Amino acid sequence: MTSKKLVNSVAGCADDALAGLVACNPSLQLLQGHRVALRSDLDSLKGRVALLSGGGSGHEPAHAGFIGKGMLTGVIAGAVFTSPAVGSILAAIRAVAQAGTVGTLLIVKNYTGDRLNFGLAREQAQAEGIPVEMVVVGDDSAFTVLKKAGRRGLCGTVLIHKVAGALAEAGVGLEEITDRVSVVAKAMGTLGVSLSSCSVPGSKPTFELSADEVELGLGIHGEAGVRRIKMAPADEIVALMLDHMTSSSNASHVPVQPGSSVVLMVNNLGGLSFLELGIIADAAVRSLEGRGVKIARALVGTFMSALEMPGISLTLLLVDEPLLKLIDAETTASAWPNVAKVWVTGRKRSRAAPTEPLAAPDSAAAAGAASKQTVLVLEQVCTTLLGLEEHLNALDRAAGDGDCGSTHSRAARAIQGWLKEGPPPASPAQLLSKLSFLLLEKMGGSSGALYGLFLTAAAQPLKAKTDLPAWSAAMDAGLAAMQKYGKAAPGDRTMLDSLWAAGQELQAWRSPGANLLQILTKAVKSAEAAAEATKNMEAGAGRASYISSARLDQPDPGAVAAAAILRAILEVLQSQGV
Amino acid sequence: MTSKKLVNSVAGCADDALAGLVACNPSLQLLQGHRVALRSDLDSLKGRVALLSGGGSGHEPAHAGFIGKGMLTGVIAGAVFTSPAVGSILAAIRAVAQAGTVGTLLIVKNYTGDRLNFGLAREQAQAEGIPVEMVVVGDDSAFTVLKKAGRRGLCGTVLIHKVAGALAEAGVGLEEITDRVSVVAKAMGTLGVSLSSCSVPGSKPTFELSADEVELGLGIHGEAGVRRIKMAPADEIVALMLDHMTSSSNASHVPVQPGSSVVLMVNNLGGLSFLELGIIADAAVRSLEGRGVKIARALVGTFMSALEMPGISLTLLLVDEPLLKLIDAETTASAWPNVAKVWVTGRKRSRAAPTEPLAAPDSAAAAGAASKQTVLVLEQVCTTLLGLEEHLNALDRAAGDGDCGSTHSRAARAIQGWLKEGPPPASPAQLLSKLSFLLLEKMGGSSGALYGLFLTAAAQPLKAKTDLPAWSAAMDAGLAAMQKYGKAAPGDRTMLDSLWAAGQELQAWRSPGANLLQILTKAVKSAEAAAEATKNMEAGAGRASYISSARLDQPDPGAVAAAAILRAILEVLQSQGV
Repeated sequence: MTSKKLVNSVAGCADDALAGLVACNPSLQLLQGHRVALRSDLDSLKGRVALLSGGGSGHEPAHAGFIGKGMLTGVIAGAVFTSPAVGSILAAIRAVAQAGTVGTLLIVKNYTGDRLNFGLAREQAQAEGIPVEMVVVGDDSAFTVLKKAGRRGLCGTVLIHKVAGALAEAGVGLEEITDRVSVVAKAMGTLGVSLSSCSVPGSKPTFELSADEVELGLGIHGEAGVRRIKMAPADEIVALMLDHMTSSSNASHVPVQPGSSVVLMVNNLGGLSFLELGIIADAAVRSLEGRGVKIARALVGTFMSALEMPGISLTLLLVDEPLLKLIDAETTASAWPNVAKVWVTGRKRSRAAPTEPLAAPDSAAAAGAASKQTVLVLEQVCTTLLGLEEHLNALDRAAGDGDCGSTHSRAARAIQGWLKEGPPPASPAQLLSKLSFLLLEKMGGSSGALYGLFLTAAAQPLKAKTDLPAWSAAMDAGLAAMQKYGKAAPGDRTMLDSLWAAGQELQAWRSPGANLLQILTKAVKSAEAAAEATKNMEAGAGRASYISSARLDQPDPGAVAAAAILRAILEVLQSQGV
Repeated sequence: MTSKKLVNSVAGCADDALAGLVACNPSLQLLQGHRVALRSDLDSLKGRVALLSGGGSGHEPAHAGFIGKGMLTGVIAGAVFTSPAVGSILAAIRAVAQAGTVGTLLIVKNYTGDRLNFGLAREQAQAEGIPVEMVVVGDDSAFTVLKKAGRRGLCGTVLIHKVAGALAEAGVGLEEITDRVSVVAKAMGTLGVSLSSCSVPGSKPTFELSADEVELGLGIHGEAGVRRIKMAPADEIVALMLDHMTSSSNASHVPVQPGSSVVLMVNNLGGLSFLELGIIADAAVRSLEGRGVKIARALVGTFMSALEMPGISLTLLLVDEPLLKLIDAETTASAWPNVAKVWVTGRKRSRAAPTEPLAAPDSAAAAGAASKQTVLVLEQVCTTLLGLEEHLNALDRAAGDGDCGSTHSRAARAIQGWLKEGPPPASPAQLLSKLSFLLLEKMGGSSGALYGLFLTAAAQPLKAKTDLPAWSAAMDAGLAAMQKYGKAAPGDRTMLDSLWAAGQELQAWRSPGANLLQILTKAVKSAEAAAEATKNMEAGAGRASYISSARLDQPDPGAVAAAAILRAILEVLQSQGV
């Protein structure tokens, strides 16, 4: 079976992708009749050196993403994983020459087809009198014994684009740029690893890996690597990669040693998650610093991909301050990342946690411990919830995952444990705040967050006063916060239904001379009726909203629990004869 | 089977990924004890509004990649696809407040867990006296009928980071930023499509798709979308997406109409190749412009991913000039792309191909048509190669893909066809140049490029003189170019072996009074001997270098062909009695 791709046609892939890049980047233009993208401000480059690169498509954002002021002047793209046409390379060289540039450097990845085609275009352009130089980049550190074909050109090529681009922008001449980047190209190494292969549009994957294997030292065309290793934690794989690419027994190693300063590139080969890319970047920084290597800059992202290959490559470039200035130079290239001009190694990577504010003294309530009555109320609430555990779980099994009773029991046990640690604060505001943090932490889930919200908001009006109107205001504040962040409204078959019904009744507390118990009794009855009524409601929020209403013929367990809590409070206050 | 991932542990994924991002970006710091990243220059923000965002991990580079001057002040990350802890959100709010900021805006994607946890932290922070506002972003345009839960927060959230960040950087107050971004958040829509699912570390993929299906309107947590559609060309899928997200019959549509100005985001959901991303971007630009929509800016890249999901989302934001200024404002956030501050629509996307230089007149040779003798030489070369087709293919089958004879016959037929069009040029330099272009285009492959290189380089010395020393110099120039770009040396079992042997003999042409035919005869014999000798050589370059030498007991077909070409030239010259 061929690969599944979001394309228009297999034949048109490279053209369409380049057209898309140019369409979305108004700083670029296509060269008519060729698969070539050039800076649209070519005419501003009179007297400067032009930089052209390119190669097969399928490595995006390389190379067209690196066109811009301070990087490439243009690129020539071949079909997927295929060297570009000599005629198009020659056309690009002529175009930049005719725009008034004084010479062209071709930056070519070391593959036979690219060397031949760029080389031929260079010879032809030189025959026309255009000064053209060529740098062949081979940064691959996979092969421990060098082949005659030399090291393959990989992600490090992007650093050459950057260095050459900074020099050209600074007005340096063709010969000097060529000499300097040739030196830089020898001071780097790249090694890849992948979890599986990629597939060229219209073709099958180029190799297969079993579930516990990763491929080490692969190229950027889906070609197999130097060896397969067993799947291992990211730290181990990264350490093995760094060992391999810096070992002096490897003929293609990069001579990084303790005390060396490097630029690190962590390159997504295409299909790896950026979560994993961050994990690999973390492992690479720790492993390098553990070896005494100083990291000057770390570039993390997708620079040179192999289509959708789920893997990464690491590139190390040895740098000194003058070279770092070129890496740091400004560029408008769209795929070059925003990099802070600050050394990675030696920076403080964390700051101290903020101080916790002292609990502000309430203007209303007394300091010290809560009354015995408050403790009794809390104990009764806990006992009630623990007694309802199985009933609530059963109700929840019809509409959710059957853990509503367990969740509320967890809350009850947390409160019981907390009460054993010592008496709760006397201040109602502080009590509700403490309960809020406790439920949030120990009850968990949406219920914990919703009770946390309710209690936090309810605590606020009680800071100033603790009379009956203040308690009604507390109830309303809690209900408002619940609705605001939870998005449930009365009638949505949630815990809000009981609490809201009670809150409506409790507003009577605001009238002068209101009777606490009389009104609370009405409120509890109203809450219980509302809980019972949820069995006829369609779920409008929460997990039960995904269940068809026909299957919901029991009351909502959250609403039942909330009504039971209110009933428990009432019972203690009645027995205490408040 | 669980997914294959480059991680250290399932439990540590979110921490490790955030640590990696912070390690590689010296502008960020972690907040000790929390999964929180903050700008390291917090203390420079005194008197300004702080912007915090976050949510579950697995959406990298969102959100930590968008921390920086001009964007977010910090983020709070949860476990993979899990809302962050309230305690960490509160710690982040306290940290920015204690650094001297005058208020905090929380930018929250519309998911229940995020709303509750950020909401609760907000309530708690407000209770501590810290001014905190909250904007809930819901840009999903998938659902045609609005659910009570509202539209999900997707990639458009990144645009809110940008707009709010530009306002905060400009010193705008908390209330005004909140109001303005709330308006902007309502003027956008996002829709996703994917080729398959993603998998949370340690888990299986969350849904399955058959080979000819794509999922439309999915979220960023691997949850299924609104419907499955048949695989179709990219243009059709993009048109369908834009229809869906802009249709006024869709309650969650973004009201984009002919004449509207938009910012377009083409977001990689994680695992799609950047080749496909470019193709989709191209399709989106064409489709939008075809609808009369004016594209102000187009952002293409990975902004908010769903782990390694191979898909994309499109976001459209309606913009006017003041809003565009905020999108264009400078930022140091690492994941915000370099975007040219130029309208996409209305730009000229191509430039004219360069002019072809007129053939420079040679100082040496006569103008006009070549001698009859030259035509005879070319004809004899063609006849010889055609006669050798089967023999060369047979030799090649032992070491390569068996097409060496076919390739040379293709070259011969191309030359025959060219000769029929008219006589070749009299100038040897022009003749070789023309042959170079012809072989490159018609012969193809590495052989075409190598002969093209040989002939282009060989033509240069013949521009000035065409005597025997010049012909020897031409041979040497051709050999040098071949070696330089092809990386083969004599003894590597390639066509170079015959040509190089001949070239050594032809250097005798440089002596005064040298005899053309005598020396050429020696050269041809030497070439033939060298070709024969390749059967004892190990392949050092080209495709045969991948075959073990024990299996190579025939001469190299490329070397045989080159010797035969030289023999054909000699025979004609002998018969003409030069």
